[in-house]
Parts: sequence; C-alpha cells; structure tokens
Amino acid sequence: MLAGKQSWIFDSKPVITATGTVGGPFEANGAIPEAFDLLHDDLWIGEDSYEKAQTVLIEGAVTETLKKASLKKEDVNFMLAGDLVNQLTPSSFAGRTIGIPYLGMFGACSTSMEGLAIGAMIMEANGARHIISVASSHNTATEKQFRYPTEYGSQKPPTAQWTATAAGACLLEKTGTGPVVTKATIGRIVDMGLSDPYDMGGAMAPAAADTIAAHFRDTNSKPDDYDLIVSGDLGQIGLPICRDLLKQQGYDLDHSKFQDCGLMLYKEDQPVMAGASGPGCSAVVTYGHLLKKMQKGELKRLLVVATGALLSPLSYQQKESIPCIAHAVSIEANGGMS
Amino acid sequence: MLAGKQSWIFDSKPVITATGTVGGPFEANGAIPEAFDLLHDDLWIGEDSYEKAQTVLIEGAVTETLKKASLKKEDVNFMLAGDLVNQLTPSSFAGRTIGIPYLGMFGACSTSMEGLAIGAMIMEANGARHIISVASSHNTATEKQFRYPTEYGSQKPPTAQWTATAAGACLLEKTGTGPVVTKATIGRIVDMGLSDPYDMGGAMAPAAADTIAAHFRDTNSKPDDYDLIVSGDLGQIGLPICRDLLKQQGYDLDHSKFQDCGLMLYKEDQPVMAGASGPGCSAVVTYGHLLKKMQKGELKRLLVVATGALLSPLSYQQKESIPCIAHAVSIEANGGMS
Repeated sequence: MLAGKQSWIFDSKPVITATGTVGGPFEANGAIPEAFDLLHDDLWIGEDSYEKAQTVLIEGAVTETLKKASLKKEDVNFMLAGDLVNQLTPSSFAGRTIGIPYLGMFGACSTSMEGLAIGAMIMEANGARHIISVASSHNTATEKQFRYPTEYGSQKPPTAQWTATAAGACLLEKTGTGPVVTKATIGRIVDMGLSDPYDMGGAMAPAAADTIAAHFRDTNSKPDDYDLIVSGDLGQIGLPICRDLLKQQGYDLDHSKFQDCGLMLYKEDQPVMAGASGPGCSAVVTYGHLLKKMQKGELKRLLVVATGALLSPLSYQQKESIPCIAHAVSIEANGGMS
Repeated sequence: MLAGKQSWIFDSKPVITATGTVGGPFEANGAIPEAFDLLHDDLWIGEDSYEKAQTVLIEGAVTETLKKASLKKEDVNFMLAGDLVNQLTPSSFAGRTIGIPYLGMFGACSTSMEGLAIGAMIMEANGARHIISVASSHNTATEKQFRYPTEYGSQKPPTAQWTATAAGACLLEKTGTGPVVTKATIGRIVDMGLSDPYDMGGAMAPAAADTIAAHFRDTNSKPDDYDLIVSGDLGQIGLPICRDLLKQQGYDLDHSKFQDCGLMLYKEDQPVMAGASGPGCSAVVTYGHLLKKMQKGELKRLLVVATGALLSPLSYQQKESIPCIAHAVSIEANGGMS
C-alpha cells in the first residue's frame, strides 16, 4: 500500500461513482460551463454574505452527487471537506446542514486532492461504505479575506489569479461504475522564498514539481503512464516554471501531457489575469470536466496534482514567504470503460 | 474495520511508540508540569510574533518525539497537523522546517483526535511505516485572532476558557512498545443554536454527547469498557451538561469515569475561568499525562473525546450560532503493559 516514501497504491481501487459540481456566474460564462451540474447567476446565491453563499455551493455539490447516486445523506459514512475561509466555516456550516460525520481538511487549493487521497485511503482500509469528498471556494469571500473587498476596485498585477466560485464533490464506493482512484502522493511543504501573494503560481510551482517527481519515483512510474497530468492552479506563470523544474529532473512534459486546471476553467477573454485558482477550481475541473472526458473514452489515465499556497494575510504581513504544497491523485478509467 | 455508521475498529492496533509535549509558562505553573517534555518560561519563545512562537512549540513537540524514538525526520512518512490559527500557518511553517510530507487537519480543538484517528487509519491500510500526529495552540495567538489582543486587558465572563499554550505530538508505528489505538468515532456537526463565544463548553457539550453515544452504539461497547473517558475541553460548564445529556440516553458516567482534559491542565487557583481549551490542551493531557498513567499501569482503557467549536470571528459577527464537533479515539495499554 505504501509505495516509496510518500505515496499510496490503492489495491482496492475505490470507485468514483458520482460527482457533483456547482459554479457561479463567472464560471457560467467560462470555457467549460458543461462541467457544472448547477450554475448560479449571482455571487450572493440569495444569501446575505459571500461565506453563506459558499455554504450553498457546497450543499449543492453534495446534493447533486447524492441525487445521481440515488443515495440519501444517511447512507454516507463520512464527508471530507475543506475551503480557504478562516476556520473553514463554509464547509462546517454545510456539514451542519448535511449531517454526515465530518472531517475538516486544510491544504489551501490542494484540499481537493488531500480529501480525495484520504477518502480513498479510508476506503482502502474498509473504513467506509460511502465517502463524500468536497472542496470549494468563492471568489468574493476569498478576495475579502485575503486581499480587499472587491467593491474597493483595487488593481492587481497580471501574475495574480482569479479564485473560482465553485464547489466540486465526489462519492467514493468500494464497487460500482466509474473511474477508479489508483494512487496518491502526499506532498512535502516547499518554500523557495517567494513572498508575493499576487504570484501564487510562481510560488507553488516548485512544490508541484517536487510532488510530481516524488510520484514517479515512489510508484516507479513515468510521464507516459498518464494520458494527462494536470496541476491544480499554477496558471500562466506557474505552469511553465514547473515544466522547467521537471525538465531539469529529466521529465520532459509537453503541453499535451501537462496542463493546468486553472487554465481550463475560463475563456481567454475573461479578465482572470494568470488563470483560475481556489480549491473549487481543481475540484470542478477534475470532477466535472476531466472525468466526463474519461467517461467518453477521451482520457484513460489522469494524474491530478492539486497545488496549495499555505499563506495567510497575517503571515504575509509578518513578512513570511509562502509555504506551498501539492498532493497528487491518479484516477483511471476502470476496466469496463477503457 | 468500519463499525456501525461512523466508527472504526483498528484490527492492526497501531502503536503509539513515542510522544512529545511542549508547553508555555502558564502550563509550567499548572497542575501537571510533569506532563511536558519541554516548558518555555516566556510566551514569545524568542520569536517576534506569537504565531511564530507557536511554530516553535510544534517543532519542539515533533523533535522530542523523534528523539525518544531515535528516528530521523526522514524516517517519517507523514505528518498530520492542525491548529486554530487562520490557514493553520503555525502548523504549515513547522511542516516547512520539518520537511515530512504533510496533511493539514482542521477540527478546531478536536484536531488532536482527528489527526490521531486518520493517522491510525493510514497505519491500518499499511499506508505508512511511521506517522507523526501533532496538534497545538498558543494562548495569545488565539486571543488576538478570536477575541482581542491580551494587551487590551478586556474582561471575560466566568464561562470563558483559557486556550493552552501547548503542542502535543505522537508517533504511530505498526509494532513496538507503547499503548495501542484500538477504535475511533468520527463526529457529526451538532449545533444547538448557542452563539456565545465565551461559552464554548456549553456549545460543544451536545456534540460530545452525540459522539460518545455513537461510539458505544457503533462499537457495541459500554462505559464500563473504559477506565476513563475524557472530553477535550468542555470545562466546568460543558462537562456537567454533557454528563446530563448522556444520562438521558441511559449512560450514567460519574466523576471517576468521565473527566475533561480542560479541567486537568491548570491548578484551581490559576485565573483560567471555566478551564483550559485549544487543540494543544487535549493533545498534551493525553500524550503527556494520561499515557504516562497508562505506562505506570494506573489506566488501561482510555477514550479521548476531543471537542471542537467550528466558529470563526466572522461567523460570530454574521450572527451565526456555533457548529460543534467531537472525535473519539480509544487508546489501550497493550498486552505487554497491562
């Protein structure tokens, strides 16, 4: 089960039997609206705060997932959830409504794959019949907390990224129809001294490269074992840096092989600067877009490397650099589909 | 492995082969100074912020643990860590220094047992040779973030609790000498509508009762199967409420059977109001105090029910009530010791 230093090979191959994806207005106008089960045309979603709106996103993603699986909330053993808001209140408040026994995860934007990796691990140990893993973010809740309320209209440099308003959930079962989770690599925290919160992609690139190289080393695999490797949200700045770092280590990943969820979510003419970010970004692109490609037979072997910048506004004010992390999960079309 | 709805029985019985506990000045003058491997006489611990001081606490707890186990950092597969500070920066920064592949956990003060439960689950699936689980809190870092900087001298009601300045770590191995982790119950989020952040014990009591009852139900066990059941930080207000709620469900737990880590850490004459709190509280009381009792043969079967209040200053300002959770882990003296 443990492979090498920091990776897992799931012999039981837990199945992703259903997914649920919810987005906001910017995502509705983006490049992959068909990736979403539900799209809201307003950032408030009828709530009186952006944090409460984010809770609604999470509840929606979980409800959509359960609906497709014809399961009730009571059937699910555990819900693994996380987001970017202080003390993960959107996830906790959704956990309160949903009532499934709850495990809070935090890895910033890497939370999506942290939850999926731990969920698959619990399945591997026969620790659950059904697990929901959900990750989310909300653009204006995040802006308000990490930077400035958007109403201030403050400007940003082109290296900045646009936090997705999105929640993506998946249901794990021991058997069933759907893609299977085959491997995972848990990342180390890597900090190369970068401290610009308007260039998270650049800061996270070395962590992504570290985890990808560890994944190949630990699981004795190589780039050609995957049809596609996607990072979570390295964006236009971080992706080429990560590609360079991997090349130095002997892994030559070209554009068709190595892409970024943050560059798939929005259209080029949307004002998202260097691309999308947020735990919700990699969650919806993986669960809503890439797994649909897998269902259609366009993709068989996928490695999702969700990247996270573990800073806080306070750590930035205290002149700290940005510690970063990436967790990788390998998802493959199962026998019946391939 | 899965027992009932929300519990785990660990057939492999992962062993806690070493622990590390670090505290601050208030803990040094407390009721159980012998529970600590390392005590600092100053809250700043030579750093220029309380958050950085908390990072030093975590690094100390991990270093003490590894020293006792004669292991190097490189020998440990994963470090599971969490705290109360926004975006868990003290844990992330400690993870950066330590360099062990890292999984961030958030369950507020329940983080200590969330980490231990997930760590034991990873061991159960053969997902690691060595795992470190660490939880921490820092009194003044917490006050500053959740309430007011202590320098303001603001007053508090007697129902308020005192966040411990403490970090507690444990090392899990497949075999070895030490107490074993036998069961765990993952809690649901319970919110009875209480919204007073100066009475967390009262808010958390129903969540603790819910998890304890679920534990008995799921694992087909009863109070007499344990020598001692401890809640994490219900304090003087929450503990009797939880006792009453359990009595209504047919579980009569008297003082000798059901106690609270938050009432063990400090002396009665210390100005801690209703008792200690914080993820560091249940971590150091469990790893430093109760497991030492187990080593001496004074305790054989222990259930630690770490309790967490999942609020944020913002959710309070938005007039939300306090969602609460509790995770229970059963630790038993192993054959050789009992």
